[in-house]
This record gives sequence, C-alpha cells and structure tokens, in this order.
Amino acid sequence: MQPEPFRDIAHVGSVELFTPVPERTRDFFVDLMAMKEVHRQGDSIYVHAWDDYESYTVKITGRDRAGVGRTFLRAASPQALRRRVEAIEAAGLGSGWSEDEFGLGPVFLFADPDGHDMGVYYETERYVAPDEHRPSLKNQASRFPGRGANIRRLDHVNYLAADVAAAGEFMTGVLGARPTERIVNDDGSPAAVWFSVCNKSYDLVYTSDWLGARGRLHHAAFATDTREDILRAADVFLEAGIHIETGPHKHAIQQTFFLYVWEPGGNRIELCNAGARLILAPDWEVVTWTQAERAKGQAWGLKTIETFHTHGTPVIE
Amino acid sequence: MQPEPFRDIAHVGSVELFTPVPERTRDFFVDLMAMKEVHRQGDSIYVHAWDDYESYTVKITGRDRAGVGRTFLRAASPQALRRRVEAIEAAGLGSGWSEDEFGLGPVFLFADPDGHDMGVYYETERYVAPDEHRPSLKNQASRFPGRGANIRRLDHVNYLAADVAAAGEFMTGVLGARPTERIVNDDGSPAAVWFSVCNKSYDLVYTSDWLGARGRLHHAAFATDTREDILRAADVFLEAGIHIETGPHKHAIQQTFFLYVWEPGGNRIELCNAGARLILAPDWEVVTWTQAERAKGQAWGLKTIETFHTHGTPVIE
Amino acid sequence: MQPEPFRDIAHVGSVELFTPVPERTRDFFVDLMAMKEVHRQGDSIYVHAWDDYESYTVKITGRDRAGVGRTFLRAASPQALRRRVEAIEAAGLGSGWSEDEFGLGPVFLFADPDGHDMGVYYETERYVAPDEHRPSLKNQASRFPGRGANIRRLDHVNYLAADVAAAGEFMTGVLGARPTERIVNDDGSPAAVWFSVCNKSYDLVYTSDWLGARGRLHHAAFATDTREDILRAADVFLEAGIHIETGPHKHAIQQTFFLYVWEPGGNRIELCNAGARLILAPDWEVVTWTQAERAKGQAWGLKTIETFHTHGTPVIE
Amino acid sequence: MQPEPFRDIAHVGSVELFTPVPERTRDFFVDLMAMKEVHRQGDSIYVHAWDDYESYTVKITGRDRAGVGRTFLRAASPQALRRRVEAIEAAGLGSGWSEDEFGLGPVFLFADPDGHDMGVYYETERYVAPDEHRPSLKNQASRFPGRGANIRRLDHVNYLAADVAAAGEFMTGVLGARPTERIVNDDGSPAAVWFSVCNKSYDLVYTSDWLGARGRLHHAAFATDTREDILRAADVFLEAGIHIETGPHKHAIQQTFFLYVWEPGGNRIELCNAGARLILAPDWEVVTWTQAERAKGQAWGLKTIETFHTHGTPVIE
Repeated sequence: MQPEPFRDIAHVGSVELFTPVPERTRDFFVDLMAMKEVHRQGDSIYVHAWDDYESYTVKITGRDRAGVGRTFLRAASPQALRRRVEAIEAAGLGSGWSEDEFGLGPVFLFADPDGHDMGVYYETERYVAPDEHRPSLKNQASRFPGRGANIRRLDHVNYLAADVAAAGEFMTGVLGARPTERIVNDDGSPAAVWFSVCNKSYDLVYTSDWLGARGRLHHAAFATDTREDILRAADVFLEAGIHIETGPHKHAIQQTFFLYVWEPGGNRIELCNAGARLILAPDWEVVTWTQAERAKGQAWGLKTIETFHTHGTPVIE
Repeated sequence: MQPEPFRDIAHVGSVELFTPVPERTRDFFVDLMAMKEVHRQGDSIYVHAWDDYESYTVKITGRDRAGVGRTFLRAASPQALRRRVEAIEAAGLGSGWSEDEFGLGPVFLFADPDGHDMGVYYETERYVAPDEHRPSLKNQASRFPGRGANIRRLDHVNYLAADVAAAGEFMTGVLGARPTERIVNDDGSPAAVWFSVCNKSYDLVYTSDWLGARGRLHHAAFATDTREDILRAADVFLEAGIHIETGPHKHAIQQTFFLYVWEPGGNRIELCNAGARLILAPDWEVVTWTQAERAKGQAWGLKTIETFHTHGTPVIE
Repeated sequence: MQPEPFRDIAHVGSVELFTPVPERTRDFFVDLMAMKEVHRQGDSIYVHAWDDYESYTVKITGRDRAGVGRTFLRAASPQALRRRVEAIEAAGLGSGWSEDEFGLGPVFLFADPDGHDMGVYYETERYVAPDEHRPSLKNQASRFPGRGANIRRLDHVNYLAADVAAAGEFMTGVLGARPTERIVNDDGSPAAVWFSVCNKSYDLVYTSDWLGARGRLHHAAFATDTREDILRAADVFLEAGIHIETGPHKHAIQQTFFLYVWEPGGNRIELCNAGARLILAPDWEVVTWTQAERAKGQAWGLKTIETFHTHGTPVIE
Repeated sequence: MQPEPFRDIAHVGSVELFTPVPERTRDFFVDLMAMKEVHRQGDSIYVHAWDDYESYTVKITGRDRAGVGRTFLRAASPQALRRRVEAIEAAGLGSGWSEDEFGLGPVFLFADPDGHDMGVYYETERYVAPDEHRPSLKNQASRFPGRGANIRRLDHVNYLAADVAAAGEFMTGVLGARPTERIVNDDGSPAAVWFSVCNKSYDLVYTSDWLGARGRLHHAAFATDTREDILRAADVFLEAGIHIETGPHKHAIQQTFFLYVWEPGGNRIELCNAGARLILAPDWEVVTWTQAERAKGQAWGLKTIETFHTHGTPVIE
C-alpha cells in the first residue's frame, strides 16, 4: 500500500504584489477588478475580492520594481500547520514566525527553492463587511459588486523559476501539492508544472524562467463566475487603456478560459474561468504535454503571443 | 487543540436511479443531458457524463417505482477507505463487501440511518473513451458533446429523510462530511442540511420528508459549465416535452443557479451551476437559515413552487 | 396588388417617465442601469444609455404620481415626418408643434386614442461624448460602462389601454406599425398587441387595462447585450434593495428573456434580451395567442405573477 | 430637402455556396451548425436554420471549386420588387426572370458589377416544420436544436471584389443599401464597405480582393443568440476537426463577436453575435476607419491573422 497522501495546505490565501505605482495598481484592483480597499499599512494597500472569506485578497506593496512578494498559504488545521512547519524546517527553507501580518495569526515564513517568499498559517481573521458592503445573502462575504471584472476570488499564482524540477519537488514533497498537468521538454526536464492543493485543478504553477532568473512572477490569476464576465472585462479594460496582452481564449492546458492584462505596475494579471471543471480524483494522473504539443497553441488555435514567453516581473534588462 | 478533521471521502462517484421506464430515463440522460450509454447489465443501464474520469456517472435501474438506489462514494485513499469501513461497521450500518459492481473495485455496502443505500470504494476503473468519443484535448475524459444540457459531471444528491438530525450525525461523525448550510426549524431541529466532502459547497443533502417516510429522493443534480448551458437546456426540455418544475433561477441557499425537471421515470433532476463559488475555508462556519428566511423564496424573489415540497420519489399515495 | 406598406417611423427615440421621487429614479437609471445624466431642465432629468446615438434615452420628470409621460418617435425622413403629421392631424389627434424639446428638432405632439402622449420628429441632436465618456471604439456612442445592468438602449414601451382595438387601429392605420404578436380574448377582442416599427419584433405594446383606465403604463423596457447581463443585474438589484417583481425567465410571447423590477418611483421596468431574433419578413403574419394559451404561463413554465395583472402606473386606488 | 431614401430590399434571404465536397459541406451545416436538410435538387442540397421563416437558408451546390453562388435578396413588397428590377435593368446588370427556384416565387436574376450572382424576389414559401421539428412555441419557425453552433439565421455575406467602389455604388444607387462602416485606403479608395439593408448593422460587405480577382467570397456569416453559443461552438469545431481560423474575439469594426472556420469545402464561415446592437438611425453616418486604424487589429488586441488576407474562394493559385 502506498503511503497515504496528505492534504495539509487548504488553499492559497492571498498574494503580495510589488509595484512601482501602488496607487495606480490599487485603482486597477478597485476600479476594474471590483475589489475593495480594506487596509493600509506601511507601504502596503490591502484589497478584498467580494467573496473572499478572509480579510484581504491582494497585498499591494510599493517597491521600485514590479514582482511578486509573499504568497500566503492557509493550512488545513493547526495540526497540519505544525506538520508543514516541521517539514519546511527540515528542508532548511524556513525563516521563522511572523506575528504581525495584517489579518492573519502567526505566519511561518519561508521561501521555495527558487526564492519566492511564502508563508503558511492557520489562524485568520474573517472578513466582516461594513454596513455599506453587507450582502443581501448571508452566505457570501460581501456585497456583489456587479461591475468591471467582478472578481470573486484569487485563483492561482504562476511563478517563473530557474529550476522548475527543484521547485516541484518542494511542492510535492514538502507542501503536499499534487501536480495535475505539466509540460516536459524533449530532454525530460519539466518546462512547467501545475500544482493543486485542493479540488481546483491548480493553485500554484512553476514555469521555467527563460532568463534563468530566480524568484520572478509570470502572473497572478483571479476567478470570475462566468466566461461572460471575462468578455465584459475585456471591454472594460479596453476603455480604461489597460494593456490586453492576449485572450479571451481557452488554454489547451487546464482548459481555462483566460484573459491576460498587465496592471499599471507591470505585473501580468490573468482573469480565469474553469466552468465546472474540478479535480475530484484523489489519485489524478498528471497530464503531460510535450514541447511539440505546446507549440500548437491554445485550445481553439490561438498562437501563444511572444510576450507570454518574454515578459516576467521584475523585468530584467 | 481541536481533534483534527478528516477528509476520507474524496467525492460522490455515481448514483443509481430507479425508474419504471428505464429506456425513457436512459434517453433523457443520453439525448437531453448529453451523456453516453456505456454498459448494460441485468436491469441496469450505465451512462457517462463527458468529463467524468470514472467509468460511469448514473446507473439507471428498472424498478416498479422511481427513487434513488445506491449512492457510491469514492474514498480518498486505501487507508481512508479502511478507516471509513471501520467507522461504518462500528455504527452498525454496514452490510459487507460487494466485489462485482460495474466499473468499481471492492465496494463496502451500507445504508445511512434513514435507509438510503450507499457504498464506499477506492479502486475504480478510469473511463477510456472509444475512438469515436476520444477528445481532442487529452485532459478531459471524452469528447465534448456540445448538445442539450451538456452535463459535465454529477454534482450532488439531495435525500428526503424522516430524521434529518440522525442522518446528519452519521454524515459528520461517521463519514466526515462538513455541514456548510442548513435550515433550522423554529423548534431548533434541522429542516435541511447541506454537506460537503470536498471543496464543492455541497455533495449530499438531507431534507426533512414531509410524509415522515424513509429512504426517498428529493433530487439528483448535475453540473453544467455555465448558466447559459442551463438556459439553453430549458429550451431543449421545452421542445422535448419534459416537465420543467421550476427555474431557471438562483437559490438563496448555496446560491446555486438551478433548473428542476422531472425525468420520464418521475425523479426530480436538477441542473446546477455554482460559478466560481467553492468552500476553501477548512473551518467554514455553517450558515443557518430560519424558517422565516426560507419562506422568502429564492434569491431573486421566486416563490418556491408547491410541488417542491410535495413531490419525492418514490411517490407515496 | 396590395397597397404598399409604409415604414415612416424609424424607431422609438426616448420615453418620459413620471415619478414622485425623481432623484431616486435618476439614481436607479444612473447607478443600476448604467446610464449617464446628461441634462436637467425644469422638473426633468435626462439620462443617456451608453450606445444611444441620440442625446438622451429617458426623460425623468417629477410628478406627484408615477406613470408614463411623452413617448418620442423618430420619423424615417423629413418626408415621412410630413406624411405622419398629416395622418395624425386627419385622425384629429394632433396638438401642434413643439420647438423646445431638449435634444430634438421640431416635435409634432399628439396622443394615441387612449390618451398616451406622443411626439414625432426627424431632426435630432447626436450624442457627443465628453472626454471622460469618449469610447475607445468610434462606432459606439459613449464609453462602455461595464457595470450594473449595463443597458445598451431603450427597447420598447408597453402601455395599458382601455380600448386596445382602437389603439391598435391607430398604430397600424396612422403610424404604420405592424402587429407581430397578439393575445385575443375568447370574444375575439384583443387583450394585448405587440407592434413593430422596425426589425425589432416589437417597439410599442398595448395591453388591456384591467381597470378600464386610460393612459397608463405597464412597463418601459431596456435592452442588454446578453442574458448574462440580466442575470448579473438581478444580483445588483437584490443588493440595492430594488423590488424584483418576476424573472429572470423567458416569455412565451415574443420569446424575450426578461427581468421585471419596480424603479423607486413605482414604474415597472423591464430588462430584456432578444438574442438574434428579428422580424425580417416584410409580410410577417401576426402570431395569435388565445387566453388559454396565455394562461399556461411563460416559456419555461413560470406562472405569471399576480401583480403583473394588477400593477400599472399611475396606481389607481 | 434630400430625396427620400428607399428601403426596397427587406433582407438577405439565402445564399448559395459552391463546394467540391457537397456531402461533407452538408454535414458541416447539419451536424455542427444545427441546420436541417430540407431538399435536394440537381447538384444542390438545401439546408434550413431553425428560425428562418423561409424554406431554406443555404443552398449547397456541388462544383469543382469552392466559392459563392447566387445570393437571394427579398424585396420589401411587390412594388419594391418592380422598382428594383427596373433599376437593375437600367444599370444593365439584369439577366431575366427565373421561375423555378426552390422555395421562391419569380426571381429576377442579376449580378453585381464584380460578377457575384444575385437574385431578387418577393414571393416566398414559408417554412412549415414537419411534425418531428414542430416547435413548442408557435412564434418560431422550427424546433430549437440546442446543439452545436445552434445557428438561428443567416447574417451576412462578405464578398471579395476587384473594384469595391463600383460594387458600392451599385449597392447604394441601385439596391438602396446604406453603408454603415468602411475602411478607406490612404489614397481615398475604399478597402472595404459594410452595407445594411435593414436594422442589422450590415448584410452585405465588399472587401478589396488582394489578387484583383472578381466574384470571389471572403465569407458567409451566421448568427447565434449568444456569445456563449460561439464559445461552445469553438469546442464543437475542435472536436470535429474543423479548421478554426481565428477567434473567438470581437471585431473593432462593427463590434461583432466572431469565430471564423473553414467548412470542409474550403469556404470561410463566420459565426457572429451582435448583442443588442442595431442601426436604428435612419440617417446613420458611415463610420470610416483608416488603414492605420485597421492595422491595430481587433477590439481586444488580437492581430488579424495572415490567412484572413490571403484566403478567399475559389482559391486562386
């Protein structure tokens, strides 16, 4: 009998984005993505998507260059948190506890082998909507905005990594994430791997950094309820002068309906919709795509746009 | 520290429906719901939804009266299966192993306290599409049908029960399901409880049987990728002469976009879409609705239709 | 050879609504329907839907009671205007020219036989978007709002009338409108008639007033691009505390996908979507529904809600 | 006062497509576009879209090479027919009456200045659905198919022409069509013109033939009720092995949501959805796009695909 798999990470809680223009990035998330500003602290502005049960969804932090800051992962239980902290420490990647993260209890800080900052926690503050954002239906976190991209929640983070294989071993061996799809180079090395920690088909993704750099971001993704939300968002971005990089279209890999834009700070942001697709199989067999298959482009024939392979944040000259 | 919750049931695998008109029920699922017939055995016809990774989705069994047969639950691992079998046996509700269920390995048979037949298993046969149903994208189970209700997968089963509280204790204590929403009578007893075993907001539901009967079905539900699929399906059902009971509309409870029809055998079938709504919180606090709140009707004001409270299968005179 | 039909009315240009709470009615159209305020004059506030090529879409006029004011019809040409004015005068229903209607050239004022005020004009002021509402694509009137009900344009006005037959004769004989569908009472009299002046399947509708009153309004309707816009709007209205009367659902008659709400002033407002349905046949044969057919309810089985037959504006005690 | 415009052409009735593989082209329209075969005669197969009030929508004719055959235009009245026949004869482009066109009364045959065959008629046979295709709602032509691209009706024909200016003068001067949008070369000559004969924003389009050839086809287009229909169709085409050329995306010009595929005979077919966009202004001012504007690509940034400028039928070596 195989050792029993563990599911100690419940989901990705929030992500921090660095931006040289924090107010403009804030306006992007608030005005166009339909989030609400909930907090400011130091160089950071916290924004909340309407159905996020936690206190915030994105932490926008002013920095000289765009990029991804810390990704926060919620553990499935206090016991699960303890186990993962032990495993991370055993891997030599931990850097101790933080007690003062907004909206979160104690967070154990660490980095993946590629240097992306992460944190894992269990205790969290529930979002309590102020009167003007209190929803009519009590089973949602706050009022339905019905505007712009109308983002319901954070979906996933896609990192660029110098060594995708090493990052992947950390994901599976230390965090217990499960690879659901991957692209394999002709030499057998992984070009990209999609990892799931829950029933979503992916939560964290590693793509090979074409510059061999470490710790960069390919994109952060946010979920809408419908594909129509994404089509409408495309018009909203057009009117707002936001750079639409590619889409709307459907990925062959993972079959996500997508739209990619660059927020004013330069980070690539995906709007995504998976329909009713979930990974329910506890023993899902990873789907492998070859380089030749990937070169065919997206599901309905769209060729992958050049910048998709050349733009990451921070931008490196 | 609280005892650690367990997640030993991965998901609902399939459901058996009894029908006095099995061929017409089969045609409903094949012609209108866009499933494929995959097997016949004894009095049963097995049909498969296009993205179900297992070998079948619904087992249609000829019987003199409509109703629900056995619900099959997939365990999260061999170890999880063993633990649940022990717990079920300890509860005195087990009835032994079956080795000859189509498409499944050994199934441990049991019934919930209300008498609904269930089975739990780990080993399963993957669906392998024959040539004519092989999909273009290898990360889906079979060819996208693009017709009728275009059902992607089974979503949930809603049982009627004489004693909802007892059924609920079994769900949580023995199976490890988590209640996500519930209706509570003014006397404090549960009128209905929605249970989740994965990140879907519900998988198994118990509603109080107004006749005090045991083992009956309120409905079985199937997921579409979009709300538009459900609107289109309404026209398809209209043309096919299928009884549309209520909808399309949005439930206040669980916020599901729904359409209810009666298949030719008389069982109530729901088409449902949840958008991007998932229960990601590992410690989700059950949402409680009072009788007064329920009486307000559905999310957008539709009054709950009379038959929704009077029609269950088997129909009792 | 039949006499040649004429098409002298191009389309319904705008409609005036009376409301006892003009600011709240204005907020309904601006905040929830996504129109823009473009002008104020006397007791009136003018609002503009994003793709209306004319200067305004709805004229909101403060009055002690809700109801419909003047409906403005654009003639197909100066010659067509002259012909219709002659015909209206010949029918004894004209009341002369007005030269000072906002956004319009000379308007010939008249009333239908039931007393609903109307006006016909040819010269009109094109909407010119101010900088902050200038669209990215020059083939649309103003910036895509992407919020709320996201109304593209006015669709139709549905009047209550004491004498539907008389109103209908005026529509066809004097204005040249074509009946496309109708409900006929068992005694042969019309209960409701849908008239089209262009390729839309209806523009002006007369429904029998159950109180025998004259000049009242059943509803004014506004078109969205998609059914999804209407589903989203339902959530927006729910959050805003707007009374949702019925829907979303699909009418059997005309097959319109609909949602009915009451704006704060009390007037019934419909959001409607016709898909790609147009009346292209120049000799379309009117579709006749009997009372028995109408009693079956809407396309997917929704029973027509009681207030749909009892609420009109102004409300009569 | 300007001379009064005339609207003697009611709409495009049907179009004939040439194909070297008529049975495969027929299967494309029947199996994937959801039309029904209604007639066979000589080398032609006639197929009918579900809400076309006339007897057929596309005439598929076996020929050695793909291309467009005759386009059939319905006149607005017998008088309008007589006037247009006189005008066409005066232009020297008529070739006499045909009395034996399937489903149509007398058809006056002619060609546009570029050599595209056309016909104009008034008398037409209404589609009468056989029992198995009779709709539940009597205001639609036949049963709602709910499968594949689920095409409601023919939308427009886009011709390639050696001399767009000459074709355009014929359209406006002889047929009374109105240009609604156009692309103008830097030398002032038209590169493409979109003409409307009704309230649809275009019905017939002329694009400059890059080879200077005459009488070729760029594409024929068919309307769906929703954008979701087009997204679903993309998956259907993917599974069926149909070449998807470009899309789904939104055109900047005319703002149509589109998908382009090549039917098995090689003709380019567009699926299109206009939302609620109509040309209601009787004096719509043509929207002019420069070559530089056109070079920007589609509404949401998609670059126009190379073959869109190099593939026409018949293909010329």
